[in-house]
Amino acid sequence: MSRSSFSQIDCGVAQAAEQIGDKWTLVILRNAFQGMSRFDEFSEHLGIAANVLSDRLNRLAAADILYRRPASQDGRAVEYKLTPKGFELFPLVVFLNQWGERWLGKPEGLRVELCDKSSGRPIRAVAAFAEDGRKLTAQDAVSRPGSGGSEVLRRAREIIARRRPAAIG
Amino acid sequence: MSRSSFSQIDCGVAQAAEQIGDKWTLVILRNAFQGMSRFDEFSEHLGIAANVLSDRLNRLAAADILYRRPASQDGRAVEYKLTPKGFELFPLVVFLNQWGERWLGKPEGLRVELCDKSSGRPIRAVAAFAEDGRKLTAQDAVSRPGSGGSEVLRRAREIIARRRPAAIG
Repeated sequence: MSRSSFSQIDCGVAQAAEQIGDKWTLVILRNAFQGMSRFDEFSEHLGIAANVLSDRLNRLAAADILYRRPASQDGRAVEYKLTPKGFELFPLVVFLNQWGERWLGKPEGLRVELCDKSSGRPIRAVAAFAEDGRKLTAQDAVSRPGSGGSEVLRRAREIIARRRPAAIG
Repeated sequence: MSRSSFSQIDCGVAQAAEQIGDKWTLVILRNAFQGMSRFDEFSEHLGIAANVLSDRLNRLAAADILYRRPASQDGRAVEYKLTPKGFELFPLVVFLNQWGERWLGKPEGLRVELCDKSSGRPIRAVAAFAEDGRKLTAQDAVSRPGSGGSEVLRRAREIIARRRPAAIG
């Protein structure tokens, strides 16, 4: 992770990126969604250096994405569980798995298929949808400043607009 | 970014994380979706060190998420545009914005609202859905090994199962 923090940047993407924009963080979250919760388990599964794992778990706990609790049977052991905020990252992990399979897949087929427990059927591809259910690509969508305002969006548009007259075509 | 590569890890999430699991990469992608394409524009907007920006753009081009092309009017200038693989990351950026607003928002309201161009209405929250359209949380879903097989999933289950007898409750 870069040393300079995004936490004061006035943009939802930047603030989210500050908290989960790290490759180790993403595989830790993947494992948490699979039911893994202990330091030693993450460590064994990921082959990650202890100081890196410790740093990422501390950051995730500080960001209220994971919380620590004593493991049920053993007073000394600690478990890391997903908070509601962390639990809501599920679509992100699903998306990464689907996009990873689509673009970085194996010729033999899917490594892991995420299925609906109740029907046993594969879940849909995570996508952006309009209110009426139409699937939206980036070209179908537009960013609008909300009531909170975004200097970040305003400056991006200013920078892009400055170039336009010379670069159109 | 960590030095050890995830590119040989037999897991879609890990492979995706290797290519986009970095906070600078995520804000660069955000800007690319907003129409930004030139080194100097990213540099000015992000206040990022030139060597870091250069590294991230090179990685994104090597991963076939962005491609380089000559800027239309100026033979020397280069543009970085989203490839089809990069363009498909749109739901990820939308999700990060929505999750960032939901959990790291401003009291005044949304900074940026992503809207459907054709209706002008806000787009839906990016989520995981069952085939029949039900919204799925992590608890409603299950990972199944696909035809490509996943040693990573098998080992995760083995590690978790080993703990279960002692930790249940």
